[in-house]
Amino acid sequence: MQKASLLLGGCVRSRKTVKMASSRVARQVPLANKVALVTASTDGIGFAIARRLAQDGAHVVVSSRKQQNVDRAVATLQGEGLSVTGTVCHVGKAQDRERLVATAVKLHRGIDILVSNAGINPLFGNTMDATEEIWDKLLSINVKSTALMTKAVVPEMEKRGGGSVVIVASIGAYFPYRGLGPYNVTKTALLGLTKTLAFDLAERNIRVNCLAPGIIKTTFSRMLWEDKAKEERIIKNLLIKRLGEPEDCAGIVSFLCSEDASYITAETVTVAGGLPSRL
Amino acid sequence: MQKASLLLGGCVRSRKTVKMASSRVARQVPLANKVALVTASTDGIGFAIARRLAQDGAHVVVSSRKQQNVDRAVATLQGEGLSVTGTVCHVGKAQDRERLVATAVKLHRGIDILVSNAGINPLFGNTMDATEEIWDKLLSINVKSTALMTKAVVPEMEKRGGGSVVIVASIGAYFPYRGLGPYNVTKTALLGLTKTLAFDLAERNIRVNCLAPGIIKTTFSRMLWEDKAKEERIIKNLLIKRLGEPEDCAGIVSFLCSEDASYITAETVTVAGGLPSRL
Amino acid sequence: MQKASLLLGGCVRSRKTVKMASSRVARQVPLANKVALVTASTDGIGFAIARRLAQDGAHVVVSSRKQQNVDRAVATLQGEGLSVTGTVCHVGKAQDRERLVATAVKLHRGIDILVSNAGINPLFGNTMDATEEIWDKLLSINVKSTALMTKAVVPEMEKRGGGSVVIVASIGAYFPYRGLGPYNVTKTALLGLTKTLAFDLAERNIRVNCLAPGIIKTTFSRMLWEDKAKEERIIKNLLIKRLGEPEDCAGIVSFLCSEDASYITAETVTVAGGLPSRL
Amino acid sequence: MQKASLLLGGCVRSRKTVKMASSRVARQVPLANKVALVTASTDGIGFAIARRLAQDGAHVVVSSRKQQNVDRAVATLQGEGLSVTGTVCHVGKAQDRERLVATAVKLHRGIDILVSNAGINPLFGNTMDATEEIWDKLLSINVKSTALMTKAVVPEMEKRGGGSVVIVASIGAYFPYRGLGPYNVTKTALLGLTKTLAFDLAERNIRVNCLAPGIIKTTFSRMLWEDKAKEERIIKNLLIKRLGEPEDCAGIVSFLCSEDASYITAETVTVAGGLPSRL
Repeated sequence: MQKASLLLGGCVRSRKTVKMASSRVARQVPLANKVALVTASTDGIGFAIARRLAQDGAHVVVSSRKQQNVDRAVATLQGEGLSVTGTVCHVGKAQDRERLVATAVKLHRGIDILVSNAGINPLFGNTMDATEEIWDKLLSINVKSTALMTKAVVPEMEKRGGGSVVIVASIGAYFPYRGLGPYNVTKTALLGLTKTLAFDLAERNIRVNCLAPGIIKTTFSRMLWEDKAKEERIIKNLLIKRLGEPEDCAGIVSFLCSEDASYITAETVTVAGGLPSRL
Repeated sequence: MQKASLLLGGCVRSRKTVKMASSRVARQVPLANKVALVTASTDGIGFAIARRLAQDGAHVVVSSRKQQNVDRAVATLQGEGLSVTGTVCHVGKAQDRERLVATAVKLHRGIDILVSNAGINPLFGNTMDATEEIWDKLLSINVKSTALMTKAVVPEMEKRGGGSVVIVASIGAYFPYRGLGPYNVTKTALLGLTKTLAFDLAERNIRVNCLAPGIIKTTFSRMLWEDKAKEERIIKNLLIKRLGEPEDCAGIVSFLCSEDASYITAETVTVAGGLPSRL
Repeated sequence: MQKASLLLGGCVRSRKTVKMASSRVARQVPLANKVALVTASTDGIGFAIARRLAQDGAHVVVSSRKQQNVDRAVATLQGEGLSVTGTVCHVGKAQDRERLVATAVKLHRGIDILVSNAGINPLFGNTMDATEEIWDKLLSINVKSTALMTKAVVPEMEKRGGGSVVIVASIGAYFPYRGLGPYNVTKTALLGLTKTLAFDLAERNIRVNCLAPGIIKTTFSRMLWEDKAKEERIIKNLLIKRLGEPEDCAGIVSFLCSEDASYITAETVTVAGGLPSRL
Repeated sequence: MQKASLLLGGCVRSRKTVKMASSRVARQVPLANKVALVTASTDGIGFAIARRLAQDGAHVVVSSRKQQNVDRAVATLQGEGLSVTGTVCHVGKAQDRERLVATAVKLHRGIDILVSNAGINPLFGNTMDATEEIWDKLLSINVKSTALMTKAVVPEMEKRGGGSVVIVASIGAYFPYRGLGPYNVTKTALLGLTKTLAFDLAERNIRVNCLAPGIIKTTFSRMLWEDKAKEERIIKNLLIKRLGEPEDCAGIVSFLCSEDASYITAETVTVAGGLPSRL
């Protein structure tokens, strides 16, 4: 009896060891063979995410609105030995969204991951400065297009038996940036879109999560840091005494798309050096 | 010395008594002489709010999209001895918003309160069912028009030295209703709009708060309760074992518009019988 | 047939008119005949709440740790013509909690309202400065005693068919005050206690809500405002450009205890001039 | 000039390539040479976290209250080739906390990571069932000891130039479990403790984050799943149609302790299959 159980113990151990060894390999390339679309990914946060997903084993399709930016990003990342291609995509245009999906499907026969980073801020001003046109543009690109881009990839994810979506919002979703009034509102909307999409897509085995970056040093946010004195005033309010780098946002997105996050959905993770968000 | 201080004490007390007496009267008509606009107020929650503001002393201008509904609501509330007038207003139309403001200004020489209740739900379905058109309509009416309606009243509030805005969101803003995917998202956006407007309007002495009603028994929500069995299933998940009534939403709105709430801004209050919202 | 329905209409209207008239009277004294306990109510926020509940019609029992403070508060409020008595109560002592309950029951034959305001801050320092003793004291008085004080009144509320509890937390519950480390933690705990008590007491028709005051000008917070320069630095970060007054916290508590809030439970309302809390 | 910039470009690229290659190696063992303490780690979630940290390169010291459990866990993990030792530690006892710290320092000359998982639930009942003793125990072990355990490791982390703390709370912190009244409250307190510790420790380069697990299949939660019918009722309310496994909680903790999370502090991540938490 004791012998049997020892043998059994032995079996269990060796099964475990095998499982562990394979899981350790898996972890080194956690996104091996996954196909990932990243919108607005030829610069800044999107670019850092695209690079990281590729480094972690994914085939990545980058995109943004200008061909030359796509070309440059693809060249850079291919130059690093990564599996990256690209296509122009203005997420506000249905045919562009469809072309992006078609490109990935043609090249890689499916889609597993969507990182929805595209967003605009056409106004530096507050809600009283915003016209109908400003609101229409902002809500259309930042909210509606994020929903429709997701809708466009869902059938392809279903064919693969599931997938993972990460939406890029902003700390401004929780605590508004001064002078970015309507932009903040669209980012709050994305917190809700994350929840609702997670609910609607759970039965298709698609998880939906969200990233809320703080103040990250990118072209997009340069008005906040190109003046050194301004940057220092901002840093005073941060727990971590520096602005974020695009790379600070990349690891968590890769994590949320990996098997390690398979029980995480409808969740937002803030990467903001400790800026006030919520409990 | 002691005498002096006693006298002083006496003075203080009588000043206090006077202040209290007047404040007690004030409390009986906490919105006396205030002028309030309420959108989508000829039925349901909006109607209950309009009635309550008027009962609490305000001159109220009700509005909604159909003349006959406006007429009926005005007749009912005037029949109760309340100071209520009305005008047709489709909040999605700039000229309608302006006419609503002009009506109040003409009748009452200013505006102190805006309750922004207008919202639509053109789709019973989830985010995968929503088309471009559905998103455009929902974002335009529920979010953009709420912002622009506020923008339209701000100059009038400024002339009066300040004011109070209450935006009606929904518990769906926190925890999405099944089958109301995109609608939920617009309601989450309103939580952010409340924060951002509160920031942008604070220096003009305008407070902006938000109401998040739970499941309230109105025409709007009738699909949830016209089937008795369905209603009972819903009630099981409530801490307070009944659906809400429109009147349950009215007191808090009046409160938020009163002097008693003068230190409350950028805040959302949930009226939902204990449904999950947030800490 | 038409006549019948007209008659019916008439009946309905007059019933409504009667209901409304009585409800309007009710609103002038929204807490008429209610019996309210308020802990830590001889000064500051608790005192303002006790006064307001009494002004709104309740019989109020004030309490705090020192007899002379109780005497002074009772004298002041009785001098204003309010129905107020008092008793010494250290909420950390079981017999004191029982005596407080017994006092109310003896005088007024029951309890309808508990406002739990008692709390201490024995340390100005951060979490690294806090010893076992500091934590024990803080958790015991601020959290445990709040729970046990509620437990002590529940049987009395049940006899009356229901009741209302309001717990006083702090904006520090959401976004920690520097130098008040462990205190903040106990206030966050109260947000959870509010939720849990609301769940546990709903079936007994007892609602439980919470108030999160911002920086209110009291003896308790004097280190924040006795230095004028410090006060001005604080005010810069507020949307409403002044510190709060105890009275700013009183109206909302009375409201939450009234019939107007009968569909509100498990909710926290922030009164903080727009300080960051949560969506 | 052009040549110079090309050369410079070349330099930058090769520097980047080197950095990337090393970073890719780093990623395979993201916690290489880190020393990690995990409390309550001989079973369930804590055990899965300890194993994962060790798999990711850390030297791990496991601990719990019973020597035989420590021995078993250490044997298992050493049998998997991991760098794991252990010591008995009742986190409620100062000398045990000190011994745990001393063990790590003696063996590995410092501490980089603390995962604070220890917690008890001495009562299955609601807040009305909880006595003084129950509250004292719960607050003492779940809240105070978590704070004091952190305080005990901070000097060691400082010597290493920084560190990372992860506190294990619960989804019950946001939305109370029925029948776990006071336990929920202690978990809400941990959300606040996370914020406050993050504030207090930022200047020492110590990040503090929190994990809020949902319903995870462990001995601790067996009353929820040992009855199959009950488990199925629970699963119905989950977006992801299974209970969580301890391993579901391990990856995110390792991530939060890694360089990839260097801009994340004061944040809570929910791992709960989509159960309601907060926006």
